[in-house]
Amino acid sequence: MSPKITTELLKQLRQVMKSPKYVQEPVQAYIVPSGDAHQSEYIAPCDCRRAFISGFDGSAGTAIVTEQHAAMWTDGRYFLQAAHQMDNNWTLMKLGLKDTPTQEDWLVSVLPEGSKVGVDPFIIPADQWKRMSKALRSAGHDLVPVKENLIDTIWTDRPQRPCKPLITLDLSYTGVNWRDKIVALRAKMAERKVPWFVVTALDEVAWLFNLRGSDVEYNPVFFAYAIVGMNTIRLFIDGGRMMDPAVREHLQLDSTLEPEFKIQVMPYGSILSELQAVGASLSPKEKVWISDKASYALTEAIPKAYRYLTPYTPICIAKAVKNASETEGMRRAHIKDAVALCELFNWLEKEVPKGTVTEIIAADKAEEFRSQQKDFVELSFATISSTGPNGAIIHYKPVPETNRTLSVNEIYLLDSGAQYKDGTTDVTRTMHFGTPSAYEKECFTYVLKGHIAVSAAIFPNGTKGHLLDSFARSALWDCGLDYLHGTGHGVGSFLNVHEGPCGISYKTFADEPLEAGMIVSDEPGYYEDGSFGIRIENVVLVIPAETKYNFKNRGSLTFEPLTLVPIQTKMIDVNLLTQKECNWVNDYHQKCREVIGAELERQGRHEALQWLIRETEPLIRVQ
Amino acid sequence: MSPKITTELLKQLRQVMKSPKYVQEPVQAYIVPSGDAHQSEYIAPCDCRRAFISGFDGSAGTAIVTEQHAAMWTDGRYFLQAAHQMDNNWTLMKLGLKDTPTQEDWLVSVLPEGSKVGVDPFIIPADQWKRMSKALRSAGHDLVPVKENLIDTIWTDRPQRPCKPLITLDLSYTGVNWRDKIVALRAKMAERKVPWFVVTALDEVAWLFNLRGSDVEYNPVFFAYAIVGMNTIRLFIDGGRMMDPAVREHLQLDSTLEPEFKIQVMPYGSILSELQAVGASLSPKEKVWISDKASYALTEAIPKAYRYLTPYTPICIAKAVKNASETEGMRRAHIKDAVALCELFNWLEKEVPKGTVTEIIAADKAEEFRSQQKDFVELSFATISSTGPNGAIIHYKPVPETNRTLSVNEIYLLDSGAQYKDGTTDVTRTMHFGTPSAYEKECFTYVLKGHIAVSAAIFPNGTKGHLLDSFARSALWDCGLDYLHGTGHGVGSFLNVHEGPCGISYKTFADEPLEAGMIVSDEPGYYEDGSFGIRIENVVLVIPAETKYNFKNRGSLTFEPLTLVPIQTKMIDVNLLTQKECNWVNDYHQKCREVIGAELERQGRHEALQWLIRETEPLIRVQ
Repeated sequence: MSPKITTELLKQLRQVMKSPKYVQEPVQAYIVPSGDAHQSEYIAPCDCRRAFISGFDGSAGTAIVTEQHAAMWTDGRYFLQAAHQMDNNWTLMKLGLKDTPTQEDWLVSVLPEGSKVGVDPFIIPADQWKRMSKALRSAGHDLVPVKENLIDTIWTDRPQRPCKPLITLDLSYTGVNWRDKIVALRAKMAERKVPWFVVTALDEVAWLFNLRGSDVEYNPVFFAYAIVGMNTIRLFIDGGRMMDPAVREHLQLDSTLEPEFKIQVMPYGSILSELQAVGASLSPKEKVWISDKASYALTEAIPKAYRYLTPYTPICIAKAVKNASETEGMRRAHIKDAVALCELFNWLEKEVPKGTVTEIIAADKAEEFRSQQKDFVELSFATISSTGPNGAIIHYKPVPETNRTLSVNEIYLLDSGAQYKDGTTDVTRTMHFGTPSAYEKECFTYVLKGHIAVSAAIFPNGTKGHLLDSFARSALWDCGLDYLHGTGHGVGSFLNVHEGPCGISYKTFADEPLEAGMIVSDEPGYYEDGSFGIRIENVVLVIPAETKYNFKNRGSLTFEPLTLVPIQTKMIDVNLLTQKECNWVNDYHQKCREVIGAELERQGRHEALQWLIRETEPLIRVQ
Repeated sequence: MSPKITTELLKQLRQVMKSPKYVQEPVQAYIVPSGDAHQSEYIAPCDCRRAFISGFDGSAGTAIVTEQHAAMWTDGRYFLQAAHQMDNNWTLMKLGLKDTPTQEDWLVSVLPEGSKVGVDPFIIPADQWKRMSKALRSAGHDLVPVKENLIDTIWTDRPQRPCKPLITLDLSYTGVNWRDKIVALRAKMAERKVPWFVVTALDEVAWLFNLRGSDVEYNPVFFAYAIVGMNTIRLFIDGGRMMDPAVREHLQLDSTLEPEFKIQVMPYGSILSELQAVGASLSPKEKVWISDKASYALTEAIPKAYRYLTPYTPICIAKAVKNASETEGMRRAHIKDAVALCELFNWLEKEVPKGTVTEIIAADKAEEFRSQQKDFVELSFATISSTGPNGAIIHYKPVPETNRTLSVNEIYLLDSGAQYKDGTTDVTRTMHFGTPSAYEKECFTYVLKGHIAVSAAIFPNGTKGHLLDSFARSALWDCGLDYLHGTGHGVGSFLNVHEGPCGISYKTFADEPLEAGMIVSDEPGYYEDGSFGIRIENVVLVIPAETKYNFKNRGSLTFEPLTLVPIQTKMIDVNLLTQKECNWVNDYHQKCREVIGAELERQGRHEALQWLIRETEPLIRVQ
C-alpha cells in the first residue's frame, strides 16, 4: 500500500489553524483524536478525520499537527500499518515503547512559549482534556476548545452523517425489556442519590432501549444520546426513524404509559442545549451522572459542582453481565459461526493448493458462509485475512495493493466475526495448508499454551481481568518471546465486538472485576515482522468454577469457550504441551465435534462435517 | 492479648477536638495516620500515635475518631491482630474487602452537614490530603490542618524523639561515595530542569549521604531532611551527631571542598522555614522536586506553581538498583543469615520435642545466632515467631499473653531478618517438627509452587512486578485458595526491609519496572484462621536471563535467590510438584548445601552442617 500524500492537506490545516474565521486566536497545534462525539472506537466515514488528515486508518491513533510537525500516536497493533499508510510528513509515535514521549511531553518539547493547542470539544473525552490541559498549563501553554472542527473545514467531500433504519429486539433476544432496564438504572441512580443520567456511548443507548442500528459499520448502533431522569426519559435521535411503526410500538410512543416511562424524542443536535437546561435547573446537591470519558463539550455543559463522573456507567456494567437469554443467544451465534468457519476451512484446504485464493477472496468466502446462517446481520469488524508477512500486521485488512495469495508455504491468519441477531462473534485461527516448519510449530504451541492458561484459569470471584494477562504470556516469556497487545476484550451481545468494563490486559488497572455472565476474548499471539503472525482467539464466558476448597467463601470463576472451531493440530508441537494442556485440547475438540458436528449434520453440510471430524482427532503425547 | 481500654482517651481526644486552645474551630473528626513526618512505615515510639489512641500497633493502619465513632482501617495482614488489640469503642474496617467503605465514604456517611475533619499536616502525605480533601469538599465538608498534634496533647508520657549516633559507610559497602550520588542526583534534576530537590524520606537521606542511624528500631535511619540545589546542600539534623569526628570527616565538613559539595548543617526543625524561603526565592519556571507522598505541610511550603511532584524520587529509583558492592554485600549478609538459621533449626529440632521452647524463646534464639555473625547490627523487623493458630495472624509478634509453646503437633512459621553492615535480610520458613498432616503438606506445596513460579519466572525487561503476582497464586487458585497480601516488596541494602519503587503485588499498578540489580522478596502464603499459617519467603535479586530467542532485542530478566536456607522437604507433597518444580527445589538445595555448607564448615559449626546436609537431600518424584 502506498502512503497518503498529505503535504497539501497539512498546509491547508495549518492555514485554518491561524484563520480568524475558525479560531479566536491562532492555535500552534491541533489535536485530531480517533473517536467521534460518542467516543466510539468504530466510527462512521464522516467521523474518520484522523484517517483523512494522515492516511492512517487503524482503529486507534491520535494525530497532532503543529506548524512544523505532524505526529501520530498509535499502539503495537498498528506500528507497521501506520508506517505504511503515512507519508514522511508524519512522525510515528509508538505507544508502549520506553522512549516514546507522551502527547503532552512532546507538545511541550516542540511548542514555542505560551502556545495554544486546539481540539474539537465534542471529540475529546473529558478525562483526556483534563490531563492534557493540566500538563500544558503547567508548561505555560493552553488547551483551547475550537468549536468548528478544523478538519471538516478542509474536508471538501466529507460524507453525510448516516441515519439508517432501526431494528427492534424483543424479549427472546434481550431477556429484559427496556422499561425494566430503566427501572434498574433508576435504582442505581437512587443508590448514589444522583437524579440525572446522561447516556453518551452509542452501544449504551442501543442496549438501554433494546434497539439496534447500522449507522456505523460493524457496530449495530445508531447516532443518539439519552438523558434519563427519575421521572423523564429524553431520547435524542434524528431522521424519520421514529416514524417507523415497529419502533413506535417498541418504545410505546403512542401508548398511554405511566409518565415516568414516556419517552420524549428530540433532535440529535439538541443534546447540548437540553443538557445545559438540565444543568441550570438543578437544586443544590442534585447531580448529573456522566461517564468521565464523555466529551469535554457535554461534560462542560454540566456546572462542575453538579457533575457525578465515573469511569464506568451503570449501563456499561449491567450490559457486560449477560443474562440467560443473551448467553443462550451468544451460544447459538457461535455455533452458526463455527459452521461457517468449518465450511471455509474445508474449502480453503481444497482451494489453496491451486494458488487461486487471495486474502480478499478468503475473507469474502468467510463472509459468504456466514451470511448463509440464520439471523446474520453483518460482520462484526473488518476481516483480518492475512498470510505470510501480512500476518505480522496485527490489525491488517487486505486491500488490493497488499493482497497476497494463500499458499502451502505460508501461515494463514484469519481473525473474523459477525453480528447475528442473537449474538456477536470474534474468532481467530492460524492455519498452515502445507507443512509448517518446526519453528512455526514451536511459536504456535507457545501461543496455544498461553491461550489454554487463560481459558483454563481458575481465579477467585472479584478478580480483575488484568491479573490474568501474564498467564497468557508465560510460555512465550520463557523463550524470550512476547506480543505487543492485550490478551482479551469484552464482547457485546449483538453489540460492539469491543466493550468495557472488563478485559484481560497488562495495560489497564481500572477494569471492573470479572463476574459470571461476562464475556471476553482470549487471544494471545506471536508476530514476527516480515515473516508471519500467529494468534489463537476464542470468545469465552465467565462461569462459576468448582474447586476443592473455598477460601473465605469467596467462590471461584473460570471460563467456558463459546467459540467452538478446531485449533489446527498440525501446527501443534505436542511434546511442548503438558499432559494437562493436551487434555484441554482434546476435550475442546471433542466438544467442537459434538456440538458443531450436530449442527453441520442438521444443516446437511456433510463435507464440512468430515473436515471437522478429521481436524478434531485427539492429540497423543509421546513421552 | 487483651485489648487496650480507650474509653477515657477517646473522651479526652474528643474534648481537645473542640478546644479553642488547639483548634481554630471545633473538628467533628480527627484522622490519625500511621506514619511520621517522613511517611515512614516503621516509626519511633514518639510517633506511635495511632497505636497510643487505639491499642492496635501493626505497621499499617489509619484511625479516624468522630464525636460518635472510632474506626480503624487496616489490611488483611492485620485483621486478626487489630481485632484482638482494640476494645469495642473501635470499628475495624477491613481494607480489600468489597463492602468496606473508604475513609472518605465513611466520613461522609457519619458526619453532620458541613463538618470539619482535622489532621496533622506533617503526618498526612500530600497525595492523601488531596484525595481526601476533594472527596470531603464535594460532600460539603472540609479537611483542615491542625498544627498541634491532638494526640500529643493528651499523651502525657510521650517519649522523646530519638537522636542516636550515626554510622558512616565507606566505599567498600556503598560502591559510590556521597558526592558522586549528589552529582548523579543533580544530573537527574538537570534532565528535568528542576533546580531544587527535597529529600523527605529517612532512608533516602541515609542512602544519599552513605550514613546510617538507629533512631527507628529495625530501620537503620536517623531523623533528618535535606534540600539539594544545583550548587548547595542543606542537611537538617539535630543533636551533637555532627560533632562526631568520623561523621565530620565522612561528610568533609571541615575540608576545603568545591562549594557545590559543601554541606550546610541546619536544625531538623528549620526545614519548613528554609523550604518556604527557597520557595519564595524562585524565579519563574524554577521548580522544587518533592515526592507526592511527602507531607502536606512541606508540600504546601512550596507555592503550587513551583511544585514538581513525582510518585518516586530519583533517589528512590537509584537506591533500588543495587551496584556490585551492594549486591556482594547482600550476598554475604544472606550467607551469614543462613548460617544463623541452620543453627536455629538444628537447635529447634532437638529442643521442640522437649516442650520447653516458646515462640519468644525461639525468636530470641534466632536473634542470638544472628548476633554471632560478623557486622550484625540489629534485627530488620520484629521477628514473627508463630505456631499453630498464631501463624494465621500474618504479621504476628509473640508477646507473653499470646506466647505458645512449639510442639511436634503444630506448624511453626518463622519470618525474621537482620541488618548487617553489608546487607539486610528477610526470610520466612514454615517447619513441622513432628509429622505434618496430608492437608498441611498439600497447602504447603501449593504455596511452594507459587514461590517457585515467581522465583523461576522469566519476563521481558521493563516488566512491572505486579504482572508477576498472579503466578504466585495460580496453584492456590486452582484449589479455591488464596492469601490476602502482596507477594513481594523491595528490600534495602543495610536499609529499610520494605522499600519502593518495585514490588510484586496485585494492589499496585504504579510500581517501577523491574531491572537487573533490584532486590525483592518472594513470599506467597496460605493462612487458615484459628489453625495455621504457611509462608515461604526468599529475598531474590533481579538478574538478566538467558533465553532461546530475544523478541525486539528487549532482553529478559529472572530472579536469583539470595536467601539460601533449606525449605523443609518433610512439608512437601512431592507428587503435587511437576518435574520442573522438583528440579528447582533440588537445585536450590544443592546451592544451599554448597554455599552455606562451606561457610558452616569455615565457622566450625559441624552440627548445623550435618543438619543442612540432611535437609538438602534431593527430592525424588515417583510417577
